[in-house]
Amino acid sequence: MSKESNRAKFVAEFPELVKELKSVLTGYGMPAEAVKWYEDSLNYNTPGGKLNRGLSVVDTYAILKGYASVDDLPVEVYKKVALLGWCIELLQAYFLVADDMMDQSITRRGQPCWYRVKEVGDIAINDAFMLEGAIYVLLKKHFRQEPYYVDLIELFHDVTFQTELGQLLDLITAPEDKVDLSKFSLEKHSFIVTFKTAYYSFYLPVALAMYVAGISDPKDLQQAHDVLIPLGEYFQIQDDYLDCFGTAEQIGKIGTDIQDNKCSWVVNKALQLASPEQRKLLDENYGKKDAECEARCKKLFHDLDIQKHYQAYEEKVAQDLRAKIAQTDESRGFRAQVLTAFLNKVYKRSK
Amino acid sequence: MSKESNRAKFVAEFPELVKELKSVLTGYGMPAEAVKWYEDSLNYNTPGGKLNRGLSVVDTYAILKGYASVDDLPVEVYKKVALLGWCIELLQAYFLVADDMMDQSITRRGQPCWYRVKEVGDIAINDAFMLEGAIYVLLKKHFRQEPYYVDLIELFHDVTFQTELGQLLDLITAPEDKVDLSKFSLEKHSFIVTFKTAYYSFYLPVALAMYVAGISDPKDLQQAHDVLIPLGEYFQIQDDYLDCFGTAEQIGKIGTDIQDNKCSWVVNKALQLASPEQRKLLDENYGKKDAECEARCKKLFHDLDIQKHYQAYEEKVAQDLRAKIAQTDESRGFRAQVLTAFLNKVYKRSK
Repeated sequence: MSKESNRAKFVAEFPELVKELKSVLTGYGMPAEAVKWYEDSLNYNTPGGKLNRGLSVVDTYAILKGYASVDDLPVEVYKKVALLGWCIELLQAYFLVADDMMDQSITRRGQPCWYRVKEVGDIAINDAFMLEGAIYVLLKKHFRQEPYYVDLIELFHDVTFQTELGQLLDLITAPEDKVDLSKFSLEKHSFIVTFKTAYYSFYLPVALAMYVAGISDPKDLQQAHDVLIPLGEYFQIQDDYLDCFGTAEQIGKIGTDIQDNKCSWVVNKALQLASPEQRKLLDENYGKKDAECEARCKKLFHDLDIQKHYQAYEEKVAQDLRAKIAQTDESRGFRAQVLTAFLNKVYKRSK
Repeated sequence: MSKESNRAKFVAEFPELVKELKSVLTGYGMPAEAVKWYEDSLNYNTPGGKLNRGLSVVDTYAILKGYASVDDLPVEVYKKVALLGWCIELLQAYFLVADDMMDQSITRRGQPCWYRVKEVGDIAINDAFMLEGAIYVLLKKHFRQEPYYVDLIELFHDVTFQTELGQLLDLITAPEDKVDLSKFSLEKHSFIVTFKTAYYSFYLPVALAMYVAGISDPKDLQQAHDVLIPLGEYFQIQDDYLDCFGTAEQIGKIGTDIQDNKCSWVVNKALQLASPEQRKLLDENYGKKDAECEARCKKLFHDLDIQKHYQAYEEKVAQDLRAKIAQTDESRGFRAQVLTAFLNKVYKRSK
């Protein structure tokens, strides 16, 4: 099954979930205009991205159960696992609606951010809450009878809280309007990206699939965790790297991390390597909404040969992860292939 | 035990919970400045209100278990039940931080709203998320081993979603900047206040205490629901009434519902009673930031004798609720006194 048809099959599940969520509201006697509002929020904010996180749940489940292809999953099983994938996409929607407000972003996925849509404005805060709320409505409806129901709920709670922690640290470390590079460090960067991105984007999809597959011994969850968290960190470091060194064609946008005072791996690596004069240059030019300041930072990054350091990092982390994956204990049914599939999607990607 | 010492005892539990929540963050290796931030947010936003919702959990539990006074509860039991009370206060904090942003409020409980505190701003959105997150961290830590753990979680999920629904309907029915009284109705008012207020303020504290007391047969939860939801509606209608007809000394503030275009019971009752000319006056004067327009609305409310209608409503609802409470089935251990205690707190209050 091709990647495109795989995605189309997953996307085709979403309208049914919207219908179910609407029926909860109509069941409460909610007036039509509010039901319509919620439907619009769900449709505007949830699909439309790459859906990698949601698709990973299905892919991982298929590998764990020994299916050659996602297409071989029985229909009801597919629906159940895809629903968990959509729950991650709802979690992501909840974060993105709020992040866009906090970052005062303009567009998201090629359309205006939700809070910038006419009539929405600050109501987007409550809409974000209700996107999160949808997760637990759906879990209750579809998984209440499962012995692992409480595990799913706790997993979503834990990962949500971890992501919010990462977001908090990011917000107070790198406010857009107040540059203070003394707050930055590679260690803090690692913490931010691990919590803000790696847990919900890498660990969550696999852990969800593991619970449904019944392969959820704490030792196996730990094995997944110990590869997927550093892999998620590596993914975000790539993202940071490409924002500065990738071409617009590669990344589909113009990188703005330097002007936005982002606590990016690139600046943190540069801070680690910089001489006192170079540090001074960064203090004076990083995070300024000015193309010349940005160009000075970029030149410094080239002078410090950040590309070389990135490539060294990338080779080392990929090698370490391969070594760790090779030691996977498959005796309880967990499969190293789950981890290899993730690593292959990330390693040396350029977009 | 006096009301004041009762409250003081409850308040004394909070620092321990903050300590536990901080230890979760330090356990994750979170940098000190972020731990401090979270601590500040918890302390700024959670205590400081009347704490009626939190205290009700303890009071209800004591009645259900036949204790003459909250003071007679064993220390460990008190702590456990008070913790659930604080979880409601955390839920309330989560709502209020967000509501204040959506309403662009200035102060809350005699201090600037959290989002207006220096350095906070839009980070308050993420702080609201983390106030909600605290509930599930605490429930997991203290109730994981209980057979009713999943019931507590689902109750919080359900009530949170219901409150958000009520908030959504309120926001789209009565935006501060766009008056359209054709969107208002007593029926919609009932829906808004039931969902936005009654569930989390009246039903939630009692249902939580019932689960811990082991008196949680669906029939008993339904008995509680069927009195507490109309009682919560009555409470909010009182609030709406006092905003317009109460003195500043009574309500501790100057009512602003008319100027703020609030979907209040008072205007909805007036809309029901108004002649076409009176309706025209309301269309032209309600929701305007203008003292003269406000005075015209107030005069109309007096002309329509809204006070008389309010008193008739109040007597009728109190009578109906007393009749319903008198029919309480106590055979499974539920106690009508729980409901009487709530009604007595609400009936004919003037502040």
